[in-house]
Amino acid sequence: MSNIRINGDRLWDSLMEMAKIGATDKGGVCRLALTDLDRQGRDLFVQWAKDAGCTITVDKMGNIFARREGRNPSLPPVMTGSHLDSQPTGGRFDGVYGVLAGLEVLRTLNDLNYETEAPVEVAVWTNEEGSRFAPAMVASGVFAGVFDLDYGLSRADQDGRTMGQELARIGYAGDQPMGKPVGAYFEAHIEQGPILEAEDKTIGIVTHAQGQRWFEVTLTGQEAHAGPTPMPIRRDALLGAARMVQAVNRIGLDNAPVACATVGLMQVYPNSRNVIPGRVFFTVDLRHPDDAVLAKMADEFHAALNEILAEGKLTAEVEQIFYYAPVPFDEDCVGAVRAATAAAGFSNRDIVSGAGHDACYLAKVAPTGMIFIPCIDGISHNEVEDAKPEWVSAGCEVLLGAMLERANAGGATVGAGSKADAA
Amino acid sequence: MSNIRINGDRLWDSLMEMAKIGATDKGGVCRLALTDLDRQGRDLFVQWAKDAGCTITVDKMGNIFARREGRNPSLPPVMTGSHLDSQPTGGRFDGVYGVLAGLEVLRTLNDLNYETEAPVEVAVWTNEEGSRFAPAMVASGVFAGVFDLDYGLSRADQDGRTMGQELARIGYAGDQPMGKPVGAYFEAHIEQGPILEAEDKTIGIVTHAQGQRWFEVTLTGQEAHAGPTPMPIRRDALLGAARMVQAVNRIGLDNAPVACATVGLMQVYPNSRNVIPGRVFFTVDLRHPDDAVLAKMADEFHAALNEILAEGKLTAEVEQIFYYAPVPFDEDCVGAVRAATAAAGFSNRDIVSGAGHDACYLAKVAPTGMIFIPCIDGISHNEVEDAKPEWVSAGCEVLLGAMLERANAGGATVGAGSKADAA
Repeated sequence: MSNIRINGDRLWDSLMEMAKIGATDKGGVCRLALTDLDRQGRDLFVQWAKDAGCTITVDKMGNIFARREGRNPSLPPVMTGSHLDSQPTGGRFDGVYGVLAGLEVLRTLNDLNYETEAPVEVAVWTNEEGSRFAPAMVASGVFAGVFDLDYGLSRADQDGRTMGQELARIGYAGDQPMGKPVGAYFEAHIEQGPILEAEDKTIGIVTHAQGQRWFEVTLTGQEAHAGPTPMPIRRDALLGAARMVQAVNRIGLDNAPVACATVGLMQVYPNSRNVIPGRVFFTVDLRHPDDAVLAKMADEFHAALNEILAEGKLTAEVEQIFYYAPVPFDEDCVGAVRAATAAAGFSNRDIVSGAGHDACYLAKVAPTGMIFIPCIDGISHNEVEDAKPEWVSAGCEVLLGAMLERANAGGATVGAGSKADAA
Repeated sequence: MSNIRINGDRLWDSLMEMAKIGATDKGGVCRLALTDLDRQGRDLFVQWAKDAGCTITVDKMGNIFARREGRNPSLPPVMTGSHLDSQPTGGRFDGVYGVLAGLEVLRTLNDLNYETEAPVEVAVWTNEEGSRFAPAMVASGVFAGVFDLDYGLSRADQDGRTMGQELARIGYAGDQPMGKPVGAYFEAHIEQGPILEAEDKTIGIVTHAQGQRWFEVTLTGQEAHAGPTPMPIRRDALLGAARMVQAVNRIGLDNAPVACATVGLMQVYPNSRNVIPGRVFFTVDLRHPDDAVLAKMADEFHAALNEILAEGKLTAEVEQIFYYAPVPFDEDCVGAVRAATAAAGFSNRDIVSGAGHDACYLAKVAPTGMIFIPCIDGISHNEVEDAKPEWVSAGCEVLLGAMLERANAGGATVGAGSKADAA
């Protein structure tokens, strides 16, 4: 299997071709979900897939499946994929890489006239980004039974247009019922972080996706004049918020090496130079791939808050506004990625996905694994997002190897089927 | 002298009468500088002063002087005063108390047919608040030679109307040249802070006004995704800003009991829930009545900043955007306030003015002292600003006693004359 090489130039050329659709001046991509540009991107992929001899199906959330038959069509397919929609100031690789790496796998199998045991499919998941329609990853979420179809189709943009309407408008309101058996699912993606490049590793073997807990906090003290108000009697909400920022950072460091803890948003009131702030609103983002540790981090956050309220004579309103459970990826899939990486001899390390991906929902209904490649300076969600061709090729090699391992495995696990939709 | 009582009811009634001009629904006052409401307030004061037998002069910045002759008209007057203009959501006492307490002093002297050695005057300083026209205290500032007359007259509001134009419009563009000798100046004011009420003291003997140093800081780190970015490599500008908020608070506490140190304004960028803040702008307000200590506080601020930059791998732009030197009030004037307070038997304590007043500029050209009375909950610059009648009366009693002491003192110090204006 280590003799099989993908065509790196062909993959790169396809990436650059797709990047022309919605290209921005700064070298990035703006191709929002279910816009005409998204349609063009989808059409291009579908054409390429058809040219590669695939059959195409589209489900009711517009998810596209390009299928290459295997020796045993009744086996659940080994699937790969990602998304073609982008951020408003997105890059050429986020999502697209996973789709076109999958296409390159199919093209390579064609070149070699290789017949897999189980069928292989490349999926394009609708609206992964959650930019135009919230929430993110909604279409893979409906596929995996996390959301109802009605919920998915009724997601609306800022102008009130729903996903259902827009799918029909661009001709991707498919007939295929939601969900089907998947033997194994792999997703190749740029890391969107700095670790692989910093450590000079070509492949990230993704063992988990982080769980997340998000909180909103409003601290209340007492607004007063900065001149005549003595220090000891102040009830300064910004001082309390500052202590919380440090406490949150401490929680991240204390749960090293993979915990993340961030205060990203803060609003100070009245925000006047000579007035002691009487109120501060801020958000907290806690992440860890181990659910018990994530819960412990939340406890530590609450404990720190209580201490700081007492110390500063403040009061608080706190709300956990959402919780995503961590996703441990399937042992066999992770193993397949590991083996393919070793066979190709790529430098590598185990890694945790800090961001959410369609793979996180697929993991609920199929054995799932992810493959990371580095991106320049760890930058993503940014028009300057970039990756080296050798990384792009390496990730695709590993993807091919892992998929073949699963597609030919004697007892390829049939993933628990996702809920059939009611419609 | 302790036999002389002011008429507390008359003073309170005048305060409430004046408060009708620009009265707000919440019981406060909106009477912005040089508006028609300001004119009405001025006209009412002038009428009251004339009814009390005063001669009225108005200088080129619209400062009004109501004069009651003394036995020796060639002596420089003992003056008191404050301001009649208010904050947009101001109260009934801030500034007005000092003006009308002065008027009550004159009315009381009339009641008793009392002839002072030196003349006594009540001043109304134009635009103390700096709300409509910046900066604050500009007209007493021109009187004291801190600003040129041209500067003062050219201050413009948000619609481009200048103080010169508005003074002419409301009929208070006076002829009197700027500045004149003042034998002693006293100003009675509500504390605008919580100390006197909290300690159950009726009179604050003001020994100093705080000096102030204001800084603007922009901290820069690195914006990055909150999920995939490991804690140890982050360059979180908000974490740095949080450490600075604590450091500034520490500087205030370390220079107790009278130092104040405040971060009032903070702006976080990009202020997104799952993005590590790459940039934060914030302001620092340091205050102390001792110039050397104030300078030390600034040094401590710079030292803390340098430490925090290194610790957080951040860079900063810092600018001291202004500096007001502390004002030590005149020993003899403070002594006169102290003696009058003791003679009347009022509970009292020495106190530092945390806010700026016209008295701060008058202190440059005349021996000056201030008298504080408590205000409810220490609240000012707020429509609910309030004070008890017994405090209002007490402060006026002390004002009368202190003014008489200076007005009758054998060697009443002739204050260094302020610069005659060039016009």
